[in-house]
Amino acid sequence: MSIHTFEPVRYYSALGTYDPVMTITSGDTVITTTLDAGGRDALLAKRHVGVNPMTGPFYIAGAEPGDTLRVRLDRITPNRRYGWTGTQLAPNVIDPEDNLALSPLPDWGERDGDWDVDVDAGTATLVEPATSLGRFAIPIRPMIGCFGVAPPGDQAISTATSSTHGGNMDYKGFVEGVNAFFPVAVPGALFFIGDGHAAQGCGEVVGTGIEISMDVQFTVTLLKGKKIGWPRMENDTHIVALGNARPLDQALQHATSELARWLQADYELDVMGSHILMGQCIEYEIGNVFDPAYTVAAKMSKSLLAVLGKV
Amino acid sequence: MSIHTFEPVRYYSALGTYDPVMTITSGDTVITTTLDAGGRDALLAKRHVGVNPMTGPFYIAGAEPGDTLRVRLDRITPNRRYGWTGTQLAPNVIDPEDNLALSPLPDWGERDGDWDVDVDAGTATLVEPATSLGRFAIPIRPMIGCFGVAPPGDQAISTATSSTHGGNMDYKGFVEGVNAFFPVAVPGALFFIGDGHAAQGCGEVVGTGIEISMDVQFTVTLLKGKKIGWPRMENDTHIVALGNARPLDQALQHATSELARWLQADYELDVMGSHILMGQCIEYEIGNVFDPAYTVAAKMSKSLLAVLGKV
Amino acid sequence: MSIHTFEPVRYYSALGTYDPVMTITSGDTVITTTLDAGGRDALLAKRHVGVNPMTGPFYIAGAEPGDTLRVRLDRITPNRRYGWTGTQLAPNVIDPEDNLALSPLPDWGERDGDWDVDVDAGTATLVEPATSLGRFAIPIRPMIGCFGVAPPGDQAISTATSSTHGGNMDYKGFVEGVNAFFPVAVPGALFFIGDGHAAQGCGEVVGTGIEISMDVQFTVTLLKGKKIGWPRMENDTHIVALGNARPLDQALQHATSELARWLQADYELDVMGSHILMGQCIEYEIGNVFDPAYTVAAKMSKSLLAVLGKV
Amino acid sequence: MSIHTFEPVRYYSALGTYDPVMTITSGDTVITTTLDAGGRDALLAKRHVGVNPMTGPFYIAGAEPGDTLRVRLDRITPNRRYGWTGTQLAPNVIDPEDNLALSPLPDWGERDGDWDVDVDAGTATLVEPATSLGRFAIPIRPMIGCFGVAPPGDQAISTATSSTHGGNMDYKGFVEGVNAFFPVAVPGALFFIGDGHAAQGCGEVVGTGIEISMDVQFTVTLLKGKKIGWPRMENDTHIVALGNARPLDQALQHATSELARWLQADYELDVMGSHILMGQCIEYEIGNVFDPAYTVAAKMSKSLLAVLGKV
Repeated sequence: MSIHTFEPVRYYSALGTYDPVMTITSGDTVITTTLDAGGRDALLAKRHVGVNPMTGPFYIAGAEPGDTLRVRLDRITPNRRYGWTGTQLAPNVIDPEDNLALSPLPDWGERDGDWDVDVDAGTATLVEPATSLGRFAIPIRPMIGCFGVAPPGDQAISTATSSTHGGNMDYKGFVEGVNAFFPVAVPGALFFIGDGHAAQGCGEVVGTGIEISMDVQFTVTLLKGKKIGWPRMENDTHIVALGNARPLDQALQHATSELARWLQADYELDVMGSHILMGQCIEYEIGNVFDPAYTVAAKMSKSLLAVLGKV
Repeated sequence: MSIHTFEPVRYYSALGTYDPVMTITSGDTVITTTLDAGGRDALLAKRHVGVNPMTGPFYIAGAEPGDTLRVRLDRITPNRRYGWTGTQLAPNVIDPEDNLALSPLPDWGERDGDWDVDVDAGTATLVEPATSLGRFAIPIRPMIGCFGVAPPGDQAISTATSSTHGGNMDYKGFVEGVNAFFPVAVPGALFFIGDGHAAQGCGEVVGTGIEISMDVQFTVTLLKGKKIGWPRMENDTHIVALGNARPLDQALQHATSELARWLQADYELDVMGSHILMGQCIEYEIGNVFDPAYTVAAKMSKSLLAVLGKV
Repeated sequence: MSIHTFEPVRYYSALGTYDPVMTITSGDTVITTTLDAGGRDALLAKRHVGVNPMTGPFYIAGAEPGDTLRVRLDRITPNRRYGWTGTQLAPNVIDPEDNLALSPLPDWGERDGDWDVDVDAGTATLVEPATSLGRFAIPIRPMIGCFGVAPPGDQAISTATSSTHGGNMDYKGFVEGVNAFFPVAVPGALFFIGDGHAAQGCGEVVGTGIEISMDVQFTVTLLKGKKIGWPRMENDTHIVALGNARPLDQALQHATSELARWLQADYELDVMGSHILMGQCIEYEIGNVFDPAYTVAAKMSKSLLAVLGKV
Repeated sequence: MSIHTFEPVRYYSALGTYDPVMTITSGDTVITTTLDAGGRDALLAKRHVGVNPMTGPFYIAGAEPGDTLRVRLDRITPNRRYGWTGTQLAPNVIDPEDNLALSPLPDWGERDGDWDVDVDAGTATLVEPATSLGRFAIPIRPMIGCFGVAPPGDQAISTATSSTHGGNMDYKGFVEGVNAFFPVAVPGALFFIGDGHAAQGCGEVVGTGIEISMDVQFTVTLLKGKKIGWPRMENDTHIVALGNARPLDQALQHATSELARWLQADYELDVMGSHILMGQCIEYEIGNVFDPAYTVAAKMSKSLLAVLGKV
């Protein structure tokens, strides 16, 4: 149960079987930092070329394919005031013909929204551009856009996208205090983290949250012999199964199937019981509909599971 | 502002340009009843063959194509104790290969879940079949599965599905107290209502909510010259645009485009302002992923709009 | 086996249970005309407002739900020289972001392509607008875009779209000489026909074929007690099952499932045999990817079936 | 213009930036062999664990990101008699509910179809299992299922799937004599090839072609400064743009957009001219609807381009 402090030197724009930066043990905690999606750090210095730079990978001693890695997000705090966002709805989230009335998308950095992120006040305020919103402030809700483990089959998967290994899920539920679960696919699991958002709407429909660099702290637990098919998450109120794919229909299928397996394996529900429960009580959230793979979260309330005497 | 009481004699399984049962005026209230999705009434008598029987249509005096019909759901109350549900996840909401391990779907009525709906206690309790859930009780939250107006172009659209005219959206947000909005496509609008659920999960993933007959009361308001593209809804906390289509991606596109138009037209946001706002603050709900057309709700918080001085 | 000549007076923009224009008998032939998709006749006179006007419906004596109606397209001949097409790829058939570089779509009639259709020469020549194509000529291959029978469940389905009843499939395989098959859903079947194209590419990707009015002749045969799920077609070389739905994936699923049922029921293949055959020998064509429902054709070569001793 | 003979020692189940097996020069020819999809060679010896083993990668001297690599498939010949196929339609290509009547899929190798491939006779004959097909013979048409170059962004992409770099497109058009084109994304391009099929239906709907090991010969040409977005292909009759994605709709969008760019850049068509041409003359083929990414081929006839004086 050591606490490690790690200062990243290089970053990755894919999750793959790269040389680990550090070996840690189940129960250990890591304190480190992440760059923003564009590769800039707390001082706005460009530290990496390539999308969604990852800090890591961290090698978890003893982790093997077929295990599950639990990662508790102990602390996620923006470490600067400047955040940025897209300013135009992504072409794929509106009716195709509506794009005919819009201007070509600028490159990132050219027509961004600039936000002043005040962690103490708990707000993000739109500074630029000048629109009918004026200096519009919203509450912050810091989250991790992209994290996960190395994928199977000698793959290295871009941090632009996501799959069974996690990756760029851009799901606003990954906030401080939650436990995330990833299926270990390579020895040591190789955990990566980055792409913090000060806040984000459902779907990440302008292609970004409020992109910002972060101070992060997380604690890993290795669940030996625990096999899962897709990333999972638990917070105070729900268990949550994530499906990552295009189209949205398939992401939803993955999430729904994974939640059914979870209820049957860990909550001792028979197949029909799990189906009836899901039929009247499942909740869905749309993580992102912007990335190459979309993300759907299938959720079940813990209070309902408690009523069933399952917890 | 009359109050009409209407006792249905016949029902429809499509929304089309049928002879109206009654002509009412903007501001009027109607008190009536609806059958359950299988055509049974408060006494469980079979009153109609065909899916999701509709009460109506009601002709709204003066309504013309290009107007909008607002319908306030004043009261939605189950009028019997017996409700029924599907008991197996729909084949299209789980991974296709997972269906290989399941049994062929029974016909409706053969392997249903039976629920005891206690309006006073506010609960629905699973009675049959015997599963690991036992006699599991959940809170009821009565809603309307299928309602809307006659569609354009001489169409008559099955109550199994939905489109711009509303129809079988199976969105659990349509509860007592909300205002729904439909684009008028034929003279008199021709409003239909039916298919009540005592409760329903997101997505209607077993193909049903808790299906039940209802006592309903609604009040109509004609918004002359107000043009909308898709059904809309308002409750105490949100404005909500509905998109109905397959795949889910297209339903989401319709809903997102409609919400953008709404924000721009009624809340005086410029295009970029509306996009930035939606980017960080939009919320999505999945209405149904079972019917021929799926339903996605795109939502914006009224408190955020209030911050903008827009309400 | 009578031959009927029918001069249409009114037209429909939906396929539904309308009063028939004529009752015919299995084996009868009808000679009639169709308007173009925009409602214009052989003299370019506007005869109907509404998309894809249908000639009919024709009541087939004795037809009942559960039967199949076979329609042989004996003759499909453009009856004027003027044909028109769209000139811009539909927003949904290209990458969504590519629409950002294009102009908003004009209304039909405003920026159409005009073609000179010479039936004797067998060519269609682009006359307007002036583009890098110049006066470009292609061979004609007249086909029917929209035909079918009244749908089930008291529906009236727009001629913009298609489903199990046929409708606006816009599949370029429906040419002179083929036999089309439709599932009868209402007494008399109620057959409709219209929307001729002098030629069309796969997918109808500009939203039209070369739209033109036609002289048509067809012969109906009632197949009593023959039950099919989706429209089918036979030509000299293939049997073809059509699936109509969005997304394209679902249209393909419908077509593939229907072809499997066809092979098993009419060609005496066991399930595994039909699957193995389809695995190495199925052919697909994309009918349309423009209409609300897309169309996929799943085909099997008759020469392969002959090798199997099945025909 | 050397001819290299290469005997593979190891294989890859992903296309990534691995150490090249050989450096070759534009104009060079390579003669080598490929394993079947299951890792077996001409003698049926298991040589690799992992799906679709790749021979290569070959480093093309001077190739840089932004160039195009042309690969001519000079010769593709099965080098043994034994081929194998799936025997059950993939769960995602039929109506989801149809899977409820089928048995769970066996593992590969357990319930395969066994085929006798006779290159001299030009036939493949089904040997096992015993079905209503009997000993059914079809003509062979050898093709390459998976080939391409290393992808951008430090990715290594599984040979189960495909993207802009090529990969597992499983398109039956990739036969002897065609020229394939790939966008170079890393220095040296790094060309991989494998996964031969003696024949395959459209869509690869049972999850395989007739899987077999091959003797292959190919010739590479480096097109400096030629930039393409997706794999392309030319044969005697057509130019062909490939799109790889899920759902099928998106694969079709990629292919259609790429064909439009091709016509505009290399055939001097203006935008409207290219759209009108595609509208009436585009052809589509479905490569595969089984792999994680589906493949659609958008085709234009060379004879039409010749009529336009473009070739």
